[in-house]
Amino acid sequence: MENKAIGIFDSGSGGLTVFKAIKKLLPDERLIYFGDFARIPYGTKSKKLVQQYALEDARFLMQYDIKMIVVACNTASSMALDFLKDNVDIPVVGVVKPGAMAAAGKTRNNSIGVIGTSATINSNAYSQAILENLPQADIYSNACPLLVPLVEEGWLDNKITQLTLKIYLKDILDNNIDTLILGCTHYPLLGATIQKIVGSHIQLIDSGQETAKTVYEVLTKNNLHNKGSKKDDDQFFVSDIPQKFEEIASRFLGEPLKNVKQVSFDDMNLGVDIISK
Amino acid sequence: MENKAIGIFDSGSGGLTVFKAIKKLLPDERLIYFGDFARIPYGTKSKKLVQQYALEDARFLMQYDIKMIVVACNTASSMALDFLKDNVDIPVVGVVKPGAMAAAGKTRNNSIGVIGTSATINSNAYSQAILENLPQADIYSNACPLLVPLVEEGWLDNKITQLTLKIYLKDILDNNIDTLILGCTHYPLLGATIQKIVGSHIQLIDSGQETAKTVYEVLTKNNLHNKGSKKDDDQFFVSDIPQKFEEIASRFLGEPLKNVKQVSFDDMNLGVDIISK
Repeated sequence: MENKAIGIFDSGSGGLTVFKAIKKLLPDERLIYFGDFARIPYGTKSKKLVQQYALEDARFLMQYDIKMIVVACNTASSMALDFLKDNVDIPVVGVVKPGAMAAAGKTRNNSIGVIGTSATINSNAYSQAILENLPQADIYSNACPLLVPLVEEGWLDNKITQLTLKIYLKDILDNNIDTLILGCTHYPLLGATIQKIVGSHIQLIDSGQETAKTVYEVLTKNNLHNKGSKKDDDQFFVSDIPQKFEEIASRFLGEPLKNVKQVSFDDMNLGVDIISK
Repeated sequence: MENKAIGIFDSGSGGLTVFKAIKKLLPDERLIYFGDFARIPYGTKSKKLVQQYALEDARFLMQYDIKMIVVACNTASSMALDFLKDNVDIPVVGVVKPGAMAAAGKTRNNSIGVIGTSATINSNAYSQAILENLPQADIYSNACPLLVPLVEEGWLDNKITQLTLKIYLKDILDNNIDTLILGCTHYPLLGATIQKIVGSHIQLIDSGQETAKTVYEVLTKNNLHNKGSKKDDDQFFVSDIPQKFEEIASRFLGEPLKNVKQVSFDDMNLGVDIISK
């Protein structure tokens, strides 16, 4: 059991920031990543559809006899985590709870901001997870749908990105928060720009980094750590290879992707049809 | 034959600008619209995948015994029009050729600009279609991936949208164009802002409006005009109902959508599996 891989999925390349954090913390674990580029983005879609897509992604990864699933996507974690746990029989870790717990632990004035996609923010998943850990918290959140396209365009710190962030963050900053959750795996790439706008007195929470710590804990608790050193390379699967794929993916991973294979859901019988009926 | 409906599809709501233009020019025709919100956007995806999606969309509409298909999406028109024509037996009209022909007819200095999604621009479909009509044309094009998210966010004329347009249009305007094709069905909503930035001496071509004229001509040529006045209402089908659907859709149509039904591709056997293998 202990030498099985960890499966990680996202709607596209954003989850590579989580992949990178897990790889750094757990260098002896073999990782299998699936990016659902054929149906990206999830953040603008309905809950039912995100649940269907997430279960298909999980079933795809489970074909590789993995020991754990990491939902490296805030939208899928917000909308489909409990649903996934009900439908698979290995541990499932999302990015929302680790980020929420870290924020609840670090805030001093109990005022926490959250930014994410429309789907993530409207789900209230972060608010619920924060309040479970810190019932007296005041939470101020805002959906920021333009940030993902800005990151994909590679505009990480130009005037347009700064102005957009100022609009999206205005109401949150008016509420004297001391902690801000980056509730989307694309946002760590805007971390330096966001920190400049919010000021150094506000601490940013990168849910991906916090998730890596949770993955470590779950492996420990279930005695699932790889016993030896890693023998096989990590693998990447994608459901489409769009233009600029390599440029975008390496922006997130910090290095070029190796071992990338394209797959098609139509070639598989993942048994998820019932979800959409 | 003549009282059949016209089928129109797009990846989402952008095609409603084309729907609106056709409805205005052909008020006696019944229209059936399909918006593939479950897989929106197409503009960032690969050619093979866009072809598969387009054929599935067309097969879906053909279940309603339509007399013609309008591909109300620049990406699908650029990447999948010939492929569709090879695979269906009714007339298929896209938005690229009508826009290209109009631009070739209207330019006086033979310098034409084109803006669109990454997929549309990289396909070179507009350049090819313009050169077929005007071999001596000089064409300057640029992919503008942030414009669709800006329109979806409803930021049609704020400072961010203006700055973004200035960046995207700079190189094109340096080349003394007198005609600019809005090569994406979202862009007509930015028409006034774009006109302000490029100046009144540059004429904008709205491919959707030109497409409505082509639809009229194809109906005439094939003797397919509805003989009486319209008896049944138009219908709208969508593959997902995302948040803000009504707000976004009515922004494009100029009025609320009635008769909207959600459908799932998983419930159908559209016979397109072979495409992705």
